[in-house]
Amino acid sequence: MTKNDMRDAILEAKASKGLSWEHIAERVGCAPVFVCATCLGEHSMTQDQAEKLTSVLGLNAEVATALTEIPTKALQGEALMNDPLIYRLKEINLVYGETIKQLIQEKFGDGIMSAIDFTMDIDRIEDPDGDRVQLTMSGKFLPYKRW
Amino acid sequence: MTKNDMRDAILEAKASKGLSWEHIAERVGCAPVFVCATCLGEHSMTQDQAEKLTSVLGLNAEVATALTEIPTKALQGEALMNDPLIYRLKEINLVYGETIKQLIQEKFGDGIMSAIDFTMDIDRIEDPDGDRVQLTMSGKFLPYKRW
Amino acid sequence: MTKNDMRDAILEAKASKGLSWEHIAERVGCAPVFVCATCLGEHSMTQDQAEKLTSVLGLNAEVATALTEIPTKALQGEALMNDPLIYRLKEINLVYGETIKQLIQEKFGDGIMSAIDFTMDIDRIEDPDGDRVQLTMSGKFLPYKRW
Amino acid sequence: MTKNDMRDAILEAKASKGLSWEHIAERVGCAPVFVCATCLGEHSMTQDQAEKLTSVLGLNAEVATALTEIPTKALQGEALMNDPLIYRLKEINLVYGETIKQLIQEKFGDGIMSAIDFTMDIDRIEDPDGDRVQLTMSGKFLPYKRW
Amino acid sequence: MTKNDMRDAILEAKASKGLSWEHIAERVGCAPVFVCATCLGEHSMTQDQAEKLTSVLGLNAEVATALTEIPTKALQGEALMNDPLIYRLKEINLVYGETIKQLIQEKFGDGIMSAIDFTMDIDRIEDPDGDRVQLTMSGKFLPYKRW
Amino acid sequence: MTKNDMRDAILEAKASKGLSWEHIAERVGCAPVFVCATCLGEHSMTQDQAEKLTSVLGLNAEVATALTEIPTKALQGEALMNDPLIYRLKEINLVYGETIKQLIQEKFGDGIMSAIDFTMDIDRIEDPDGDRVQLTMSGKFLPYKRW
Amino acid sequence: MTKNDMRDAILEAKASKGLSWEHIAERVGCAPVFVCATCLGEHSMTQDQAEKLTSVLGLNAEVATALTEIPTKALQGEALMNDPLIYRLKEINLVYGETIKQLIQEKFGDGIMSAIDFTMDIDRIEDPDGDRVQLTMSGKFLPYKRW
Amino acid sequence: MTKNDMRDAILEAKASKGLSWEHIAERVGCAPVFVCATCLGEHSMTQDQAEKLTSVLGLNAEVATALTEIPTKALQGEALMNDPLIYRLKEINLVYGETIKQLIQEKFGDGIMSAIDFTMDIDRIEDPDGDRVQLTMSGKFLPYKRW
Amino acid sequence: MTKNDMRDAILEAKASKGLSWEHIAERVGCAPVFVCATCLGEHSMTQDQAEKLTSVLGLNAEVATALTEIPTKALQGEALMNDPLIYRLKEINLVYGETIKQLIQEKFGDGIMSAIDFTMDIDRIEDPDGDRVQLTMSGKFLPYKRW
Amino acid sequence: MTKNDMRDAILEAKASKGLSWEHIAERVGCAPVFVCATCLGEHSMTQDQAEKLTSVLGLNAEVATALTEIPTKALQGEALMNDPLIYRLKEINLVYGETIKQLIQEKFGDGIMSAIDFTMDIDRIEDPDGDRVQLTMSGKFLPYKRW
Repeated sequence: MTKNDMRDAILEAKASKGLSWEHIAERVGCAPVFVCATCLGEHSMTQDQAEKLTSVLGLNAEVATALTEIPTKALQGEALMNDPLIYRLKEINLVYGETIKQLIQEKFGDGIMSAIDFTMDIDRIEDPDGDRVQLTMSGKFLPYKRW
Repeated sequence: MTKNDMRDAILEAKASKGLSWEHIAERVGCAPVFVCATCLGEHSMTQDQAEKLTSVLGLNAEVATALTEIPTKALQGEALMNDPLIYRLKEINLVYGETIKQLIQEKFGDGIMSAIDFTMDIDRIEDPDGDRVQLTMSGKFLPYKRW
Repeated sequence: MTKNDMRDAILEAKASKGLSWEHIAERVGCAPVFVCATCLGEHSMTQDQAEKLTSVLGLNAEVATALTEIPTKALQGEALMNDPLIYRLKEINLVYGETIKQLIQEKFGDGIMSAIDFTMDIDRIEDPDGDRVQLTMSGKFLPYKRW
Repeated sequence: MTKNDMRDAILEAKASKGLSWEHIAERVGCAPVFVCATCLGEHSMTQDQAEKLTSVLGLNAEVATALTEIPTKALQGEALMNDPLIYRLKEINLVYGETIKQLIQEKFGDGIMSAIDFTMDIDRIEDPDGDRVQLTMSGKFLPYKRW
Repeated sequence: MTKNDMRDAILEAKASKGLSWEHIAERVGCAPVFVCATCLGEHSMTQDQAEKLTSVLGLNAEVATALTEIPTKALQGEALMNDPLIYRLKEINLVYGETIKQLIQEKFGDGIMSAIDFTMDIDRIEDPDGDRVQLTMSGKFLPYKRW
Repeated sequence: MTKNDMRDAILEAKASKGLSWEHIAERVGCAPVFVCATCLGEHSMTQDQAEKLTSVLGLNAEVATALTEIPTKALQGEALMNDPLIYRLKEINLVYGETIKQLIQEKFGDGIMSAIDFTMDIDRIEDPDGDRVQLTMSGKFLPYKRW
Repeated sequence: MTKNDMRDAILEAKASKGLSWEHIAERVGCAPVFVCATCLGEHSMTQDQAEKLTSVLGLNAEVATALTEIPTKALQGEALMNDPLIYRLKEINLVYGETIKQLIQEKFGDGIMSAIDFTMDIDRIEDPDGDRVQLTMSGKFLPYKRW
Repeated sequence: MTKNDMRDAILEAKASKGLSWEHIAERVGCAPVFVCATCLGEHSMTQDQAEKLTSVLGLNAEVATALTEIPTKALQGEALMNDPLIYRLKEINLVYGETIKQLIQEKFGDGIMSAIDFTMDIDRIEDPDGDRVQLTMSGKFLPYKRW
Repeated sequence: MTKNDMRDAILEAKASKGLSWEHIAERVGCAPVFVCATCLGEHSMTQDQAEKLTSVLGLNAEVATALTEIPTKALQGEALMNDPLIYRLKEINLVYGETIKQLIQEKFGDGIMSAIDFTMDIDRIEDPDGDRVQLTMSGKFLPYKRW
Repeated sequence: MTKNDMRDAILEAKASKGLSWEHIAERVGCAPVFVCATCLGEHSMTQDQAEKLTSVLGLNAEVATALTEIPTKALQGEALMNDPLIYRLKEINLVYGETIKQLIQEKFGDGIMSAIDFTMDIDRIEDPDGDRVQLTMSGKFLPYKRW
């Protein structure tokens, strides 16, 4: 089963059962961002997680196997960047990229924030002026090796 | 005074005085990300903020005026995306962009996270397995208008 | 039902019934630009609007459901920009983009015109020298947050 | 005098005199969008208009001559599209381009909205939910010739 | 019937009947360039023209309807520019583009040659040193509006 | 003397003397398109032509020498294609490129229209509905060699 | 029969019969480069050549007809340039392109080497230090027309 | 002395002395293509060759040193490919690239023609139908290693 | 059998048999990188190697034949570069490319490291601070020919 | 002092003193790849290392300070990839990228080889068939976090 077929099967089952990513994540015992990314084909999970997930959605073992396989990531590439919601993150990087570099280096020295040893949470923050989306990204600092 | 000259003057003064963005921000009374982005030429600040900032750095009124002008943003464009630290944010969008879209829409419906009514904090989180960079992005949710 | 299948079904029904977007919009009770964009797969509408629309066109509930789903927008990307009619809007931005920036900032300060809290009308203006197309775009001004 | 030198001279004089594009346009007797685009180097004006404009700004005859010359337009090209305000117009075209095509063709048949026999107004519309930017574009409809 | 299916049907019928574009154009009563461009899916014709054309080629009413529909133009985009014959026109624009701009502006002032109110003829000119291709392009001059 | 310096010298002399390309071409004894392209740096002329041209414009021998040198052509590349006048020729190729290929091949067989053994005229054709620009391109047909 | 189907049929027949391009070319009576390019869909041949070729490969008349049709060339475009063997020719042009221009112009004046009135041979040259590939390209010199 | 300064010095001396690449190459004792490519900054030569070359052109030791330094090659990249003469080699690769691959592999197996252990000659071949440019490229065949 | 079908058959058989590339390579008698690259469609192997490989995986002679055919390499091109693991190699070249050039030239003179007469090993190196990936690339130095 | 000025000063001093990167590295007490990359402006070193380096080369304290500053990396971007030596590493990634992914994942699971906690050695390996370049890359394996 290809990652694309896996993805279609999951999205269809999720829609027909009316489940949210939040709910599925709770049942699998991990974070919503991680579960969603894996179901969209951008991550892999353990056999145990995969079985819980397919059991929640009523899907078969083939889907579970596909969930444990390591994907080639980001195959949709820049094409997705035209969607307005996804573009805003590109814009944040275009406008604030250098600023992020300045402030991380001021606090840590020469290195980067890992995008691999990395977690993200997405929350709805109530606000009388209009609720806000909060993205919390946490990546291990990796210092550049000098050798 | 062009934004580029302003930027050079500020970075030079900051380096020679050995001040951090954190410290400057505290003295100006605003957030480090906002102060740094403005000094790099990607934002504008009020006359009052600009005067506090130039006073901290010992710079003249021309620099203050330049800080209040509205810049053409993101002129360095994609070229900066090759820097490894800045690239990681592009990679996060390539890998997690669709996931962010799914989860924001699940919580809010059709719309986007604003990159304009937007704030960001950058923190160092101590961790025995290696300290972590934490980026907290907060953008107002803007629902797509149906008319 | 995918957005593409939905789109094909609607365009076929519209053609065979000989209905205009103007007429459909009136029956659904919303603006022609909004109705057309939703049918082409770039917007979502309420269940109520979707039912009215499919009733006008004699289409089934699957189409109505597809109309309420949030699409990934702008998937055709730059490829459409080669069509001469669509290119003219790109050209207007190439020639007048900076001018629009100057004048919005003169009237409002640092910020943008929202493309989300946004409406558009397209009208035919009679003119003895040749009728004119009038595009009226209205977007909420969003001031850049200083924090 | 190159168009770039002309532009710099005008922007500097305008800033030092604290004049708005609205005010300058009124004095020259034409529309603000037209005046601003010409001063930025994207249009040409008549000798008479140019003299009025340089008189308002206290600039010399060389600037007036430069204002009457026909420019190579859009030389900054796609690079400006990264500015968030200017990008929103690109995004509107990405999301609504096909819709605009459908509706113009429904009202006029096969052809385009001219970007040459074209005018634009930019207005601030007061609104209790936040003031709005209104762009009104008017272009002559040009039918595709069949021959 | 899609424009692609229409195109395939016409090219097949034309080949099997051994007709030239010249001949078809004469029978339809319009120019060869116009007929050919419409059959390739880049133009639309009147119902009357379409019926004459399908009658010449022995094709059905569906093809005639497709011929009258307004196409999205230039969908093949830059990809065709690699063909050596088509590239030569790109090269002419690369080498002579500025020259054409100079000479049109010298004769007409600020404006463009329309590509919409536009006709083209393609002729074979006999020449003892080798016959020549002659392209005659005629486009209405459109002066830039000053307003 | 570089081609750019030569070009600047010629354009300045031409403007200060108020001469047209038509007039210069007549004095040099060749076509306006050829003279203009050479002065812009895209062609080379004979020593004799160069001397006539510099004599008309009152320029020195260095300019004449530069006019006889073979240039690297099209160095401005795609950047010029954003100018609306120059873009229309790109659009004509996008919309009619395949048509031109069909009709040349119908009349000549497999081969191309030369862009080297090539001439072009640009004329103003009076027309009660608005004067027209006429571009007449003439290129030797070059048959593909079979060997 | 499309050029792609023609190509597949020929490559399959050639492989199953174990024939070389050299052998086929000899039987058809033309050059290996020409035969191979035609079979890959980048050239056209005469009816007579096409019949000889299909007879050698045991293919039907439809293939022969397809071989005589004029193809749209270079449709695979830049994508093939990543293959290491094909890339080396791109690299030779990147490194030696200007040199080739200098030397052709030294010997011939302003003009080009034709890629249409063009032949190429590919030979294996024995060499004790390792055999060498020899490409011999011969193109008619085309002088730039001055008119 | 940078490679660019070296290049300018050599081209100027060569022009003022009226020497051809053929002549210079003979005096240095190597091939014209090699000498020309080195002078343009795409190759390096031995100290002995460099001294001969600077002696022929009357240039100083700094130029000789620059000629022996290893350049970063192909810095002008794709930009040169718009020149018609240089483009023809790109076109040959677009049209014949796959053919070259087929024929080299038929004669040699899996591998490439080296662009490093590589020589090229450029000759004028007299021909009553118009003289021809002949490029002879010779590159060592490098078999792909299997390990 | 196309290279893509071959690839799918091998990956499926490998997964269902639970074999590693290391194991397969040992059975075929060659290096893991070479075996894997050939199975993915980027290399060719001898008939003997192909038979051993298909015997290990229980695949038929068609697969073996496909393994011996010379592929068009790198058809997936830049698209794969978005995968984070594969991107890191691009990043290493962006950051260290010039350094590699400096050091190879210091040790060898003007020339390159061959990517054809080339081998690579990939090893896991145990390390108390976290195991490391070791890539060892070995390419024959090829000196630039001077002729 | 900018990184570019620092780089020029170092390369000039290194050339005039005739020192190798190997020698400099030994004197500074670190690896040649690291020293060279830092001097080219792609890395930063400690104050102590910087002082040793400037002492070896006879450069002043400003250069030492510049060496300790954190650079924006990879600013030359893709432009360098046209150099044949640097391109070979791009080609290796195009041809072997997927293979490297397969083998790292087989040995380590889902994750990447770090390009930050990364070292590289470049060696000359003597070989009777021609000496070989050996690149040894060592990067910490970073497992994708599941959370």
